[in-house]
Amino acid sequence: MELWYTEQQTDEVRFSIKVKQHLYTGKSEFQDVDVFESEEFGKFLTLDGLMMVTEKDEFIYHDMITHVAMATNPSIKKVLVIGGGDGGTVRELTRYSHIEKIDMVEIDKLVVDVSREYLPITASKLDDPRVSLYFEDGIRFVADTKEVYDLILVDSTDPIGPGEGLFTTEFYQNCFNILSDNGILVNQSESPYYDQFSHEMKRAHKKIKNIFPISKVYQFHMPTYPSGHWLFGFASKKLDPIKDVDFDKWNALGIKTKYYNPQLHVGCFALPSYVQEMLDNE
Amino acid sequence: MELWYTEQQTDEVRFSIKVKQHLYTGKSEFQDVDVFESEEFGKFLTLDGLMMVTEKDEFIYHDMITHVAMATNPSIKKVLVIGGGDGGTVRELTRYSHIEKIDMVEIDKLVVDVSREYLPITASKLDDPRVSLYFEDGIRFVADTKEVYDLILVDSTDPIGPGEGLFTTEFYQNCFNILSDNGILVNQSESPYYDQFSHEMKRAHKKIKNIFPISKVYQFHMPTYPSGHWLFGFASKKLDPIKDVDFDKWNALGIKTKYYNPQLHVGCFALPSYVQEMLDNE
Repeated sequence: MELWYTEQQTDEVRFSIKVKQHLYTGKSEFQDVDVFESEEFGKFLTLDGLMMVTEKDEFIYHDMITHVAMATNPSIKKVLVIGGGDGGTVRELTRYSHIEKIDMVEIDKLVVDVSREYLPITASKLDDPRVSLYFEDGIRFVADTKEVYDLILVDSTDPIGPGEGLFTTEFYQNCFNILSDNGILVNQSESPYYDQFSHEMKRAHKKIKNIFPISKVYQFHMPTYPSGHWLFGFASKKLDPIKDVDFDKWNALGIKTKYYNPQLHVGCFALPSYVQEMLDNE
Repeated sequence: MELWYTEQQTDEVRFSIKVKQHLYTGKSEFQDVDVFESEEFGKFLTLDGLMMVTEKDEFIYHDMITHVAMATNPSIKKVLVIGGGDGGTVRELTRYSHIEKIDMVEIDKLVVDVSREYLPITASKLDDPRVSLYFEDGIRFVADTKEVYDLILVDSTDPIGPGEGLFTTEFYQNCFNILSDNGILVNQSESPYYDQFSHEMKRAHKKIKNIFPISKVYQFHMPTYPSGHWLFGFASKKLDPIKDVDFDKWNALGIKTKYYNPQLHVGCFALPSYVQEMLDNE
Protein backbone atom coordinates (compact mmCIF):
# COMPACT_ATOMS: atom_id res chain seq x y z
CA MET A 1 0.00 0.00 0.00
CA GLU A 2 1.20 3.52 -0.76
CA LEU A 3 -0.06 6.62 1.00
CA TRP A 4 0.45 10.02 -0.67
CA TYR A 5 -0.19 13.53 0.64
CA THR A 6 -1.26 15.70 -2.29
CA GLU A 7 -1.40 19.47 -2.10
CA GLN A 8 -3.37 21.47 -4.62
CA GLN A 9 -0.81 24.29 -4.93
CA THR A 10 -2.85 26.10 -7.57
CA ASP A 11 -5.88 25.01 -9.61
CA GLU A 12 -3.45 23.62 -12.17
CA VAL A 13 -0.61 22.27 -10.04
CA ARG A 14 -0.33 19.52 -7.46
CA PHE A 15 2.60 18.53 -5.28
CA SER A 16 2.61 15.08 -3.70
CA ILE A 17 4.69 13.50 -0.99
CA LYS A 18 4.82 9.82 -0.17
CA VAL A 19 3.94 9.44 3.49
CA LYS A 20 4.55 6.71 5.98
CA GLN A 21 1.86 7.74 8.39
CA HIS A 22 -0.83 10.32 9.04
CA LEU A 23 0.22 11.08 12.58
CA TYR A 24 -2.40 13.59 13.61
CA THR A 25 -5.57 15.22 12.36
CA GLY A 26 -7.57 17.84 14.22
CA LYS A 27 -9.69 20.90 13.74
CA SER A 28 -9.58 24.16 15.64
CA GLU A 29 -12.08 26.99 15.34
CA PHE A 30 -9.75 28.44 12.70
CA GLN A 31 -8.48 25.59 10.54
CA ASP A 32 -7.69 21.95 9.95
CA VAL A 33 -4.40 20.86 11.47
CA ASP A 34 -2.58 17.74 10.26
CA VAL A 35 0.79 16.12 10.81
CA PHE A 36 2.31 13.49 8.51
CA GLU A 37 5.46 11.48 8.58
CA SER A 38 7.46 10.95 5.41
CA GLU A 39 10.77 9.47 4.37
CA GLU A 40 11.95 12.46 2.34
CA PHE A 41 10.81 15.37 4.50
CA GLY A 42 10.53 13.82 7.93
CA LYS A 43 7.46 15.00 9.81
CA PHE A 44 5.48 17.84 8.33
CA LEU A 45 2.59 20.06 9.42
CA THR A 46 -0.23 21.29 7.20
CA LEU A 47 -2.99 23.82 7.88
CA ASP A 48 -6.16 23.51 5.81
CA GLY A 49 -4.23 21.10 3.58
CA LEU A 50 -1.41 23.54 2.83
CA MET A 51 2.21 22.86 3.69
CA MET A 52 3.52 24.91 6.61
CA VAL A 53 6.67 23.25 7.86
CA THR A 54 8.73 20.12 7.20
CA GLU A 55 11.61 18.78 9.24
CA LYS A 56 13.76 18.72 6.10
CA ASP A 57 13.58 22.34 5.05
CA GLU A 58 12.19 24.37 7.95
CA PHE A 59 15.73 25.66 8.52
CA ILE A 60 15.57 27.62 5.27
CA TYR A 61 12.43 29.56 6.14
CA HIS A 62 13.42 30.16 9.76
CA ASP A 63 16.95 31.24 8.91
CA MET A 64 15.67 33.70 6.39
CA ILE A 65 12.85 35.23 8.43
CA THR A 66 15.18 35.83 11.38
CA HIS A 67 18.83 36.42 10.57
CA VAL A 68 18.55 39.08 7.86
CA ALA A 69 17.02 41.51 10.33
CA MET A 70 19.16 40.37 13.25
CA ALA A 71 22.36 41.01 11.28
CA THR A 72 21.09 44.37 10.08
CA ASN A 73 20.57 45.53 13.65
CA PRO A 74 22.63 43.62 16.22
CA SER A 75 21.10 45.74 19.02
CA ILE A 76 17.62 44.26 18.77
CA LYS A 77 16.29 43.51 22.23
CA LYS A 78 12.51 43.24 21.96
CA VAL A 79 10.89 41.11 19.30
CA LEU A 80 7.28 40.45 18.38
CA VAL A 81 6.42 37.34 16.36
CA ILE A 82 2.98 37.26 14.75
CA GLY A 83 1.89 33.73 13.89
CA GLY A 84 4.74 31.24 13.76
CA GLY A 85 2.88 28.65 15.83
CA ASP A 86 5.34 25.89 15.01
CA GLY A 87 7.95 27.77 17.05
CA GLY A 88 10.78 27.72 14.51
CA THR A 89 11.06 31.49 14.29
CA VAL A 90 11.21 31.80 18.06
CA ARG A 91 13.85 29.06 18.16
CA GLU A 92 16.13 31.06 15.86
CA LEU A 93 15.56 34.23 17.89
CA THR A 94 16.47 32.53 21.17
CA ARG A 95 19.95 31.89 19.77
CA TYR A 96 20.69 35.60 20.27
CA SER A 97 21.61 36.04 23.91
CA HIS A 98 21.22 39.82 23.67
CA ILE A 99 17.50 39.53 22.89
CA GLU A 100 15.64 40.25 26.12
CA LYS A 101 12.02 39.72 25.23
CA ILE A 102 10.15 37.67 22.62
CA ASP A 103 6.38 38.00 22.42
CA MET A 104 4.70 35.50 20.15
CA VAL A 105 1.08 36.06 19.16
CA GLU A 106 -0.48 32.99 17.58
CA ILE A 107 -4.22 32.98 16.98
CA ASP A 108 -4.50 29.20 17.05
CA LYS A 109 -3.35 27.44 20.22
CA LEU A 110 -3.87 24.06 18.57
CA VAL A 111 -0.98 24.75 16.18
CA VAL A 112 1.34 25.30 19.12
CA ASP A 113 0.06 22.27 21.02
CA VAL A 114 0.45 20.01 18.01
CA SER A 115 3.90 21.40 17.22
CA ARG A 116 5.05 20.83 20.78
CA GLU A 117 3.99 17.21 20.51
CA TYR A 118 5.10 16.35 16.98
CA LEU A 119 7.68 18.95 15.97
CA PRO A 120 10.13 19.47 18.84
CA ILE A 121 12.63 20.43 16.14
CA THR A 122 10.83 23.77 15.80
CA ALA A 123 8.88 24.05 19.07
CA SER A 124 11.67 23.24 21.51
CA LYS A 125 12.45 26.83 22.50
CA LEU A 126 8.94 28.04 23.20
CA ASP A 127 9.66 27.58 26.90
CA ASP A 128 12.67 29.88 26.88
CA PRO A 129 12.16 32.29 29.82
CA ARG A 130 12.27 35.31 27.48
CA VAL A 131 9.29 34.04 25.49
CA SER A 132 5.68 35.01 26.23
CA LEU A 133 2.93 33.29 24.26
CA TYR A 134 -0.33 35.08 23.50
CA PHE A 135 -3.09 33.05 21.91
CA GLU A 136 -4.97 35.87 20.31
CA ASP A 137 -5.49 37.76 17.10
CA GLY A 138 -2.27 39.46 15.95
CA ILE A 139 -4.26 42.21 14.25
CA ARG A 140 -5.81 43.22 17.54
CA PHE A 141 -2.57 42.72 19.45
CA VAL A 142 -0.64 45.28 17.37
CA ALA A 143 -3.55 47.71 17.61
CA ASP A 144 -3.81 47.49 21.39
CA THR A 145 -0.34 46.87 22.80
CA LYS A 146 1.55 49.59 24.64
CA GLU A 147 4.83 47.76 24.12
CA VAL A 148 7.54 49.02 21.75
CA TYR A 149 9.47 46.47 19.68
CA ASP A 150 12.73 46.59 17.75
CA LEU A 151 11.65 43.86 15.38
CA ILE A 152 8.35 42.40 14.23
CA LEU A 153 8.37 39.11 12.32
CA VAL A 154 5.11 38.28 10.56
CA ASP A 155 5.26 34.51 10.18
CA SER A 156 1.81 34.11 8.67
CA THR A 157 -0.14 31.76 6.46
CA ASP A 158 -1.43 32.91 3.07
CA PRO A 159 -3.89 35.83 3.11
CA ILE A 160 -6.87 33.51 3.14
CA GLY A 161 -8.59 32.51 6.37
CA PRO A 162 -6.91 33.53 9.64
CA GLY A 163 -3.93 35.13 7.85
CA GLU A 164 -5.99 37.59 5.81
CA GLY A 165 -5.89 40.55 8.20
CA LEU A 166 -2.09 40.31 8.36
CA PHE A 167 -1.92 41.67 4.80
CA THR A 168 -3.86 44.90 5.43
CA THR A 169 -2.70 48.53 5.52
CA GLU A 170 -4.14 48.90 9.00
CA PHE A 171 -2.05 46.02 10.29
CA TYR A 172 1.16 47.32 8.71
CA GLN A 173 0.47 50.81 10.05
CA ASN A 174 0.00 49.45 13.55
CA CYS A 175 3.26 47.56 13.20
CA PHE A 176 4.97 50.79 12.24
CA ASN A 177 3.45 52.54 15.25
CA ILE A 178 4.77 50.04 17.80
CA LEU A 179 8.29 49.83 16.35
CA SER A 180 11.24 51.68 17.87
CA ASP A 181 13.20 54.25 15.81
CA ASN A 182 15.50 51.53 14.46
CA GLY A 183 12.57 49.18 14.06
CA ILE A 184 12.34 46.51 11.37
CA LEU A 185 9.33 44.62 10.04
CA VAL A 186 9.85 41.32 8.20
CA ASN A 187 6.77 39.77 6.65
CA GLN A 188 5.95 36.59 4.77
CA SER A 189 5.43 37.96 1.25
CA GLU A 190 4.26 35.03 -0.84
CA SER A 191 5.80 34.22 -4.21
CA PRO A 192 6.25 35.86 -7.60
CA TYR A 193 5.65 32.85 -9.82
CA TYR A 194 1.99 31.84 -9.82
CA ASP A 195 -0.52 34.65 -10.31
CA GLN A 196 -2.55 33.99 -7.19
CA PHE A 197 0.56 34.42 -5.05
CA SER A 198 2.21 37.25 -6.97
CA HIS A 199 -1.04 39.19 -6.70
CA GLU A 200 -0.73 39.09 -2.91
CA MET A 201 3.00 39.80 -3.05
CA LYS A 202 2.36 42.99 -5.03
CA ARG A 203 -0.51 44.15 -2.83
CA ALA A 204 1.48 43.64 0.36
CA HIS A 205 4.52 45.46 -0.99
CA LYS A 206 2.47 48.40 -2.21
CA LYS A 207 0.89 48.87 1.19
CA ILE A 208 4.15 48.56 3.10
CA LYS A 209 6.12 50.95 0.93
CA ASN A 210 3.50 53.61 1.55
CA ILE A 211 4.13 53.35 5.27
CA PHE A 212 7.83 52.54 5.77
CA PRO A 213 10.69 54.75 4.51
CA ILE A 214 12.66 51.63 3.57
CA SER A 215 10.86 48.74 1.95
CA LYS A 216 12.58 45.88 0.12
CA VAL A 217 11.91 42.28 -0.76
CA TYR A 218 14.27 39.34 -0.54
CA GLN A 219 14.04 35.82 -1.88
CA PHE A 220 14.96 32.30 -0.96
CA HIS A 221 14.53 28.70 -2.14
CA MET A 222 11.71 26.94 -0.28
CA PRO A 223 11.14 23.66 -2.11
CA THR A 224 7.98 22.60 -0.28
CA TYR A 225 6.10 25.85 -0.99
CA PRO A 226 4.38 26.45 -4.35
CA SER A 227 7.01 27.09 -7.04
CA GLY A 228 9.82 26.91 -4.48
CA HIS A 229 10.45 30.64 -4.97
CA TRP A 230 9.49 32.46 -1.82
CA LEU A 231 9.85 36.00 -0.50
CA PHE A 232 10.03 38.02 2.66
CA GLY A 233 9.47 41.74 2.86
CA PHE A 234 12.01 43.83 4.77
CA ALA A 235 10.65 47.19 5.92
CA SER A 236 12.22 49.60 8.35
CA LYS A 237 12.14 53.12 9.66
CA LYS A 238 15.81 53.83 9.15
CA LEU A 239 18.08 50.84 8.66
CA ASP A 240 18.98 49.58 5.21
CA PRO A 241 19.65 45.82 5.11
CA ILE A 242 22.65 46.24 2.80
CA LYS A 243 24.15 49.60 3.72
CA ASP A 244 23.73 49.33 7.46
CA VAL A 245 24.49 45.69 8.07
CA ASP A 246 27.57 44.90 10.14
CA PHE A 247 28.72 41.39 9.32
CA ASP A 248 31.75 41.55 11.60
CA LYS A 249 29.42 42.01 14.52
CA TRP A 250 27.13 39.26 13.34
CA ASN A 251 30.00 36.86 12.69
CA ALA A 252 31.35 37.59 16.17
CA LEU A 253 28.15 36.16 17.64
CA GLY A 254 29.24 32.75 16.39
CA ILE A 255 25.76 31.71 15.28
CA LYS A 256 26.09 28.75 12.95
CA THR A 257 23.47 28.64 10.21
CA LYS A 258 22.67 26.08 7.57
CA TYR A 259 21.14 28.41 4.98
CA TYR A 260 21.83 32.04 5.89
CA ASN A 261 25.27 33.63 5.58
CA PRO A 262 26.54 37.17 4.97
CA GLN A 263 27.09 36.68 1.23
CA LEU A 264 23.60 35.30 0.88
CA HIS A 265 22.25 38.22 2.94
CA VAL A 266 23.40 40.56 0.20
CA GLY A 267 22.60 38.19 -2.65
CA CYS A 268 19.02 37.49 -1.62
CA PHE A 269 18.00 41.10 -2.27
CA ALA A 270 19.03 40.78 -5.93
CA LEU A 271 15.71 39.83 -7.49
CA PRO A 272 15.03 38.57 -11.00
CA SER A 273 14.00 41.37 -13.34
CA TYR A 274 10.42 40.16 -13.70
CA VAL A 275 9.98 40.17 -9.93
CA GLN A 276 11.54 43.60 -9.49
CA GLU A 277 9.30 44.97 -12.22
CA MET A 278 6.18 43.56 -10.61
CA LEU A 279 7.15 45.26 -7.35
CA ASP A 280 8.16 48.56 -8.95
CA ASN A 281 5.00 48.81 -11.03
CA GLU A 282 2.67 48.55 -8.07
CA MET B 1 -12.73 14.90 -17.61
CA GLU B 2 -9.41 16.04 -16.20
CA LEU B 3 -6.04 15.15 -17.64
CA TRP B 4 -2.93 15.47 -15.46
CA TYR B 5 0.75 15.09 -16.29
CA THR B 6 2.52 13.63 -13.26
CA GLU B 7 6.27 13.60 -12.90
CA GLN B 8 7.97 11.32 -10.43
CA GLN B 9 10.59 13.86 -9.32
CA THR B 10 12.09 11.48 -6.77
CA ASP B 11 10.84 8.17 -5.37
CA GLU B 12 9.00 10.16 -2.73
CA VAL B 13 7.87 13.27 -4.60
CA ARG B 14 5.50 13.89 -7.49
CA PHE B 15 4.73 17.07 -9.36
CA SER B 16 1.54 17.24 -11.41
CA ILE B 17 0.28 19.68 -13.99
CA LYS B 18 -3.26 19.86 -15.31
CA VAL B 19 -3.06 19.53 -19.07
CA LYS B 20 -5.44 20.45 -21.84
CA GLN B 21 -3.94 18.17 -24.42
CA HIS B 22 -1.21 15.65 -25.07
CA LEU B 23 0.01 17.25 -28.29
CA TYR B 24 2.75 14.86 -29.29
CA THR B 25 4.32 11.58 -28.29
CA GLY B 26 7.24 9.93 -30.00
CA LYS B 27 10.31 7.83 -29.40
CA SER B 28 13.80 8.26 -30.76
CA GLU B 29 16.65 5.81 -30.41
CA PHE B 30 17.61 7.73 -27.27
CA GLN B 31 14.45 8.60 -25.40
CA ASP B 32 10.71 9.24 -25.23
CA VAL B 33 9.72 12.70 -26.42
CA ASP B 34 6.38 14.26 -25.43
CA VAL B 35 4.72 17.63 -25.71
CA PHE B 36 1.74 18.73 -23.63
CA GLU B 37 -0.38 21.84 -23.55
CA SER B 38 -1.44 23.32 -20.22
CA GLU B 39 -3.18 26.40 -18.94
CA GLU B 40 -0.56 27.33 -16.34
CA PHE B 41 2.68 26.59 -18.19
CA GLY B 42 1.63 26.78 -21.82
CA LYS B 43 3.20 24.07 -23.92
CA PHE B 44 5.88 21.93 -22.36
CA LEU B 45 8.35 19.29 -23.52
CA THR B 46 9.37 16.19 -21.57
CA LEU B 47 12.08 13.61 -22.24
CA ASP B 48 11.59 10.17 -20.72
CA GLY B 49 8.81 11.68 -18.63
CA LEU B 50 11.02 14.40 -17.13
CA MET B 51 10.31 18.09 -17.55
CA MET B 52 12.70 19.86 -19.89
CA VAL B 53 11.12 23.14 -20.89
CA THR B 54 7.84 25.02 -20.44
CA GLU B 55 6.70 28.15 -22.21
CA LYS B 56 6.10 29.80 -18.84
CA ASP B 57 9.54 29.54 -17.30
CA GLU B 58 12.02 28.64 -20.04
CA PHE B 59 13.23 32.24 -19.90
CA ILE B 60 14.71 31.63 -16.45
CA TYR B 61 16.87 28.71 -17.46
CA HIS B 62 17.95 30.24 -20.77
CA ASP B 63 18.75 33.63 -19.27
CA MET B 64 20.87 32.02 -16.62
CA ILE B 65 22.79 29.57 -18.80
CA THR B 66 23.72 32.34 -21.25
CA HIS B 67 24.04 35.82 -19.85
CA VAL B 68 26.28 35.20 -16.83
CA ALA B 69 29.11 34.10 -19.11
CA MET B 70 28.32 36.63 -21.84
CA ALA B 71 28.53 39.49 -19.34
CA THR B 72 31.74 38.14 -17.85
CA ASN B 73 33.42 38.18 -21.24
CA PRO B 74 31.82 40.55 -23.75
CA SER B 75 34.36 39.50 -26.39
CA ILE B 76 33.02 36.00 -26.86
CA LYS B 77 32.83 35.19 -30.57
CA LYS B 78 32.67 31.41 -30.90
CA VAL B 79 30.26 29.37 -28.84
CA LEU B 80 29.61 25.66 -28.56
CA VAL B 81 26.28 24.44 -27.17
CA ILE B 82 26.11 20.80 -26.12
CA GLY B 83 22.53 19.54 -25.93
CA GLY B 84 19.95 22.29 -25.78
CA GLY B 85 17.76 20.71 -28.46
CA ASP B 86 14.80 22.97 -27.71
CA GLY B 87 16.85 25.89 -29.05
CA GLY B 88 16.32 28.29 -26.16
CA THR B 89 20.02 28.60 -25.35
CA VAL B 90 20.86 29.32 -28.97
CA ARG B 91 18.06 31.89 -29.10
CA GLU B 92 19.62 33.85 -26.22
CA LEU B 93 23.07 33.63 -27.82
CA THR B 94 21.82 35.02 -31.14
CA ARG B 95 20.85 38.22 -29.36
CA TYR B 96 24.56 39.12 -29.19
CA SER B 97 25.47 40.57 -32.55
CA HIS B 98 29.21 40.21 -31.82
CA ILE B 99 28.94 36.41 -31.63
CA GLU B 100 30.18 35.08 -34.95
CA LYS B 101 29.69 31.35 -34.68
CA ILE B 102 27.36 29.08 -32.71
CA ASP B 103 27.80 25.32 -33.03
CA MET B 104 25.08 23.26 -31.42
CA VAL B 105 25.62 19.55 -30.88
CA GLU B 106 22.43 17.71 -30.01
CA ILE B 107 22.49 13.95 -29.97
CA ASP B 108 18.77 13.60 -30.64
CA LYS B 109 17.44 15.18 -33.83
CA LEU B 110 13.89 14.35 -32.81
CA VAL B 111 14.10 16.86 -29.94
CA VAL B 112 14.98 19.61 -32.39
CA ASP B 113 12.31 18.58 -34.89
CA VAL B 114 9.62 18.46 -32.23
CA SER B 115 10.75 21.78 -30.74
CA ARG B 116 10.63 23.44 -34.14
CA GLU B 117 7.07 22.30 -34.57
CA TYR B 118 5.65 22.83 -31.08
CA LEU B 119 7.99 25.28 -29.35
CA PRO B 120 8.80 28.13 -31.71
CA ILE B 121 9.27 30.23 -28.56
CA THR B 122 12.60 28.46 -27.99
CA ALA B 123 13.43 27.03 -31.43
CA SER B 124 12.86 30.14 -33.55
CA LYS B 125 16.51 31.13 -33.87
CA LEU B 126 17.96 27.79 -34.89
CA ASP B 127 18.01 29.05 -38.48
CA ASP B 128 20.17 32.05 -37.66
CA PRO B 129 22.99 32.03 -40.25
CA ARG B 130 25.63 31.86 -37.51
CA VAL B 131 24.20 28.60 -36.17
CA SER B 132 25.42 25.15 -37.29
CA LEU B 133 23.56 22.10 -36.03
CA TYR B 134 25.34 18.80 -35.47
CA PHE B 135 23.23 15.80 -34.62
CA GLU B 136 25.85 13.74 -32.92
CA ASP B 137 27.28 12.80 -29.57
CA GLY B 138 28.65 15.83 -27.71
CA ILE B 139 31.21 13.66 -25.94
CA ARG B 140 32.76 12.65 -29.23
CA PHE B 141 32.41 16.13 -30.70
CA VAL B 142 34.56 17.76 -28.01
CA ALA B 143 37.12 14.96 -28.31
CA ASP B 144 37.44 15.28 -32.08
CA THR B 145 36.90 18.91 -33.05
CA LYS B 146 39.78 21.09 -34.17
CA GLU B 147 37.77 24.23 -33.45
CA VAL B 148 38.57 26.57 -30.56
CA TYR B 149 35.66 28.11 -28.62
CA ASP B 150 35.38 31.06 -26.25
CA LEU B 151 32.38 29.59 -24.48
CA ILE B 152 30.89 26.12 -24.06
CA LEU B 153 27.36 25.80 -22.68
CA VAL B 154 26.42 22.31 -21.55
CA ASP B 155 22.63 22.31 -21.71
CA SER B 156 22.15 18.68 -20.80
CA THR B 157 19.60 16.38 -19.26
CA ASP B 158 20.29 14.61 -15.98
CA PRO B 159 23.28 12.26 -15.94
CA ILE B 160 21.09 9.26 -16.74
CA GLY B 161 20.66 8.03 -20.30
CA PRO B 162 22.08 10.19 -23.10
CA GLY B 163 23.26 12.90 -20.66
CA GLU B 164 25.49 10.61 -18.62
CA GLY B 165 28.76 11.12 -20.49
CA LEU B 166 28.40 14.89 -20.14
CA PHE B 167 29.23 14.55 -16.45
CA THR B 168 32.58 12.79 -16.84
CA THR B 169 36.14 14.00 -16.23
CA GLU B 170 37.07 13.12 -19.79
CA PHE B 171 34.32 15.33 -21.18
CA TYR B 172 35.26 18.28 -18.96
CA GLN B 173 38.93 17.86 -19.85
CA ASN B 174 38.11 17.90 -23.56
CA CYS B 175 36.04 21.05 -23.03
CA PHE B 176 39.06 22.64 -21.35
CA ASN B 177 41.27 21.62 -24.26
CA ILE B 178 39.11 23.26 -26.92
CA LEU B 179 38.54 26.52 -25.03
CA SER B 180 40.48 29.70 -25.82
CA ASP B 181 42.64 31.38 -23.15
CA ASN B 182 39.70 33.40 -21.90
CA GLY B 183 37.40 30.40 -22.28
CA ILE B 184 34.39 29.72 -20.07
CA LEU B 185 32.45 26.51 -19.48
CA VAL B 186 28.90 26.69 -18.10
CA ASN B 187 27.28 23.38 -17.28
CA GLN B 188 23.90 22.23 -16.01
CA SER B 189 24.74 21.22 -12.45
CA GLU B 190 21.60 19.69 -10.99
CA SER B 191 20.24 20.69 -7.60
CA PRO B 192 21.38 20.67 -3.97
CA TYR B 193 18.09 19.68 -2.33
CA TYR B 194 17.24 16.04 -3.01
CA ASP B 195 20.05 13.53 -2.47
CA GLN B 196 19.93 11.98 -5.92
CA PHE B 197 20.53 15.39 -7.51
CA SER B 198 23.00 16.78 -4.97
CA HIS B 199 25.06 13.64 -5.41
CA GLU B 200 25.51 14.53 -9.10
CA MET B 201 26.05 18.20 -8.32
CA LYS B 202 28.94 17.33 -6.00
CA ARG B 203 30.52 14.85 -8.39
CA ALA B 204 30.40 17.29 -11.31
CA HIS B 205 31.87 20.12 -9.25
CA LYS B 206 34.70 17.95 -7.93
CA LYS B 207 35.72 16.92 -11.43
CA ILE B 208 35.54 20.43 -12.86
CA LYS B 209 37.52 22.09 -10.09
CA ASN B 210 40.35 19.63 -10.68
CA ILE B 211 40.61 20.82 -14.27
CA PHE B 212 39.73 24.53 -14.34
CA PRO B 213 41.62 27.20 -12.37
CA ILE B 214 38.32 28.97 -11.62
CA SER B 215 35.28 26.89 -10.72
CA LYS B 216 32.13 28.27 -9.11
CA VAL B 217 28.47 27.40 -8.90
CA TYR B 218 25.49 29.72 -9.21
CA GLN B 219 21.83 29.21 -8.45
CA PHE B 220 18.44 30.20 -9.75
CA HIS B 221 14.75 29.53 -9.19
CA MET B 222 13.39 26.99 -11.68
CA PRO B 223 9.89 26.09 -10.47
CA THR B 224 9.24 23.20 -12.86
CA TYR B 225 12.42 21.31 -11.95
CA PRO B 226 12.61 19.12 -8.84
CA SER B 227 12.76 21.33 -5.71
CA GLY B 228 12.82 24.50 -7.84
CA HIS B 229 16.41 25.11 -6.70
CA TRP B 230 18.70 24.66 -9.67
CA LEU B 231 22.38 25.28 -10.37
CA PHE B 232 24.82 25.98 -13.14
CA GLY B 233 28.55 25.53 -12.87
CA PHE B 234 30.80 28.36 -14.06
CA ALA B 235 34.34 27.25 -14.87
CA SER B 236 37.01 29.20 -16.67
CA LYS B 237 40.69 29.38 -17.43
CA LYS B 238 41.17 32.95 -16.29
CA LEU B 239 38.05 35.06 -15.93
CA ASP B 240 36.26 35.42 -12.62
CA PRO B 241 32.51 36.00 -12.98
CA ILE B 242 32.46 38.62 -10.22
CA LYS B 243 35.87 40.31 -10.40
CA ASP B 244 36.16 40.44 -14.17
CA VAL B 245 32.60 41.22 -15.18
CA ASP B 246 32.01 44.56 -16.90
CA PHE B 247 28.37 45.52 -16.45
CA ASP B 248 28.75 48.85 -18.21
CA LYS B 249 29.70 47.01 -21.34
CA TRP B 250 26.90 44.50 -20.94
CA ASN B 251 24.32 47.20 -20.24
CA ALA B 252 25.50 49.08 -23.34
CA LEU B 253 24.43 46.10 -25.45
CA GLY B 254 20.82 46.93 -24.58
CA ILE B 255 19.78 43.31 -24.14
CA LYS B 256 16.51 43.22 -22.25
CA THR B 257 16.11 40.21 -19.97
CA LYS B 258 13.22 38.99 -17.88
CA TYR B 259 15.22 37.12 -15.24
CA TYR B 260 18.92 38.01 -15.49
CA ASN B 261 20.29 41.39 -14.45
CA PRO B 262 23.66 42.61 -13.15
CA GLN B 263 22.61 42.60 -9.48
CA LEU B 264 21.34 39.07 -9.85
CA HIS B 265 24.58 38.09 -11.62
CA VAL B 266 26.44 38.87 -8.42
CA GLY B 267 23.70 37.62 -6.10
CA CYS B 268 23.31 34.20 -7.74
CA PHE B 269 26.83 33.17 -6.71
CA ALA B 270 25.93 33.64 -3.03
CA LEU B 271 24.91 30.11 -2.13
CA PRO B 272 23.19 28.88 1.02
CA SER B 273 25.66 27.58 3.59
CA TYR B 274 24.55 23.96 3.24
CA VAL B 275 25.13 24.09 -0.52
CA GLN B 276 28.52 25.76 -0.21
CA GLU B 277 29.57 23.17 2.35
CA MET B 278 28.54 20.30 0.10
CA LEU B 279 30.65 21.77 -2.69
CA ASP B 280 33.65 22.59 -0.48
CA ASN B 281 33.73 19.16 1.13
CA GLU B 282 34.00 17.29 -2.14
